[in-house]
Amino acid sequence: MIKLAPGLLKRMHCFIPRDLKSYRLLIITDKKVKSFYGDDLKVLLESKGYDVQLIAFPAGEKYKTRETKAKIESSMIKNGYTRQTCIIALGGGVVGDMAGFIAATYMRGVPYIQVPTTLLAMLDSSIGGKTAVNTPEGKNLIGAFYEPDAVIADTDCLDSLSDKQWINGWIEALKIFMTCNAAAFKKASHMKGPTLALIKRAIQIKADIVAQDPLEAGLRAVLNFGHTVGHALEKACDYKLLHGYAVGYGILVEATISLQRGYISIKEHDSVVTALHQLGIRGAYLKRFDINTILKLIKRDKKIKDNRVRCILLQGLGACCIENINDEDVRQAFKAVTAGVYYAGE
Amino acid sequence: MIKLAPGLLKRMHCFIPRDLKSYRLLIITDKKVKSFYGDDLKVLLESKGYDVQLIAFPAGEKYKTRETKAKIESSMIKNGYTRQTCIIALGGGVVGDMAGFIAATYMRGVPYIQVPTTLLAMLDSSIGGKTAVNTPEGKNLIGAFYEPDAVIADTDCLDSLSDKQWINGWIEALKIFMTCNAAAFKKASHMKGPTLALIKRAIQIKADIVAQDPLEAGLRAVLNFGHTVGHALEKACDYKLLHGYAVGYGILVEATISLQRGYISIKEHDSVVTALHQLGIRGAYLKRFDINTILKLIKRDKKIKDNRVRCILLQGLGACCIENINDEDVRQAFKAVTAGVYYAGE
Repeated sequence: MIKLAPGLLKRMHCFIPRDLKSYRLLIITDKKVKSFYGDDLKVLLESKGYDVQLIAFPAGEKYKTRETKAKIESSMIKNGYTRQTCIIALGGGVVGDMAGFIAATYMRGVPYIQVPTTLLAMLDSSIGGKTAVNTPEGKNLIGAFYEPDAVIADTDCLDSLSDKQWINGWIEALKIFMTCNAAAFKKASHMKGPTLALIKRAIQIKADIVAQDPLEAGLRAVLNFGHTVGHALEKACDYKLLHGYAVGYGILVEATISLQRGYISIKEHDSVVTALHQLGIRGAYLKRFDINTILKLIKRDKKIKDNRVRCILLQGLGACCIENINDEDVRQAFKAVTAGVYYAGE
Repeated sequence: MIKLAPGLLKRMHCFIPRDLKSYRLLIITDKKVKSFYGDDLKVLLESKGYDVQLIAFPAGEKYKTRETKAKIESSMIKNGYTRQTCIIALGGGVVGDMAGFIAATYMRGVPYIQVPTTLLAMLDSSIGGKTAVNTPEGKNLIGAFYEPDAVIADTDCLDSLSDKQWINGWIEALKIFMTCNAAAFKKASHMKGPTLALIKRAIQIKADIVAQDPLEAGLRAVLNFGHTVGHALEKACDYKLLHGYAVGYGILVEATISLQRGYISIKEHDSVVTALHQLGIRGAYLKRFDINTILKLIKRDKKIKDNRVRCILLQGLGACCIENINDEDVRQAFKAVTAGVYYAGE
């Protein structure tokens, strides 16, 4: 069950699946979201007769670690949580990944509900059951595929987002359209900002893909467009770059490799670059990164096969393929992106 | 695929599933098993053209922790292991649980092969995909259900087992027969020791149960007979008691609760007690445990539902049920077991 609408948080008690009615509820969130929505949600669910506790960890990607996971688990065990526990993952992507991974492994698995509060989490991490923590070596390297019992996305939460957080999420929607739906991408590029209809469209496309390929055996990999380079950028700056932004810069590089291979036209490449420019994603930003560090980090990507880095490349707009790329591909594209010069004669 | 026969380790290269032929192999084992079988297995697989590495952690239940898991994972990431890795879990139950849980969560899951080297692991942990680590609060509380791609049990490994390790495993077989097959239990009680045919029978029964109920929604719980009390005993003595022995003492207590509820006859109870006595499992041993500590630890059992401890009880020999038990049930049975006095008039 995926629900996206305004006013859902205030009716959250209506969305606890019937077979979990007798379960203890545990809201896992971060300290920022706790004061925004967590405390109120706890009061609401208590007033409806649920046994509810709340655990909040410090906000930020750098706390999405095995250590945070272990602390929360130990606190759960000490407080007598059994398999009859339903976890509510309330927050952004970091909370969703962490709470989901705890749900996947607590006593070998308990049910959980994703309640994303950012646009990025609604579009990205809450859909599809990917859960994980980071390690000192890289992002999302330890985790599990574990589907939530429900995804409840209250669009009222979007009202409180900063411009930066909007952009952070919207880039994920653009990515979905670029790889899967040219018409939606065209529409989205001409909008001043995201509309509810387009957000719903992006979520639907993602949910369809995930349903066809839950374990990322093939098709689902298209959702990783921009992520091969994006994850390396995130890691290189110790997660100071927000995920959506990192993917945005990753798309600049990976779309440029697509251009270099002749898979997209100059015009198509330009429409991708322009859409990202409008959101403040400009290639010159990448100058601060050392290309050798990035190349090293890319080699820790989960999609690596037969020792080759595999990358999603556009094949026209609205379609893509997965191909091996080498250091030279990335070097060239990186150079072109930082200089803003993509083809001879420009 | 479950294989149980002599000589399998020397032909291990024949059992790597065909679709994993191009994968890097990683043997995860403990330091004892490494010198017994690990080094030879590595040499064999290398000679057959595989890229094989071996990681060994210190032997013993107390190293089955999140910390050991994290160390192995980090070493794997640093050594460039990707999703194209097949883990070989070579060793006893601790190794199987640890390596299996790593396989379940490394980059959200890689294939693995269980190669149990003890009777206990052949009968118990290698079958059915239960993987886990212990935490300071209790046993197997964090883990996942994650099926191995193959189970390769070389009965030649049993030749090197001590009497203690034989008994440690054989108790699990008796447990399976007590709860599921009265005829096999009768046969097993009259044998001087385990036979290959009976070991195969026990494995088959377990594999059938697991196939019917992989996530322990119901039926599979029968395999936990003796474990509600057994796990608490293990934890109470910091895992100094071997798992099979702990289950043996647990069976004494839980069979006695079954007797107290009138679910088994004095004669049936006596045949259970006698079978365990022959293996050196005697109730008086439990005098060293503080019943209040045990009661507290029992409440962390994973089977707890609606705040009640649920326990497998025998219903005659070869059959069982799951029922709520309370502190008083355990106290009474514990007292009877330590005193060796099970019923009035004895």
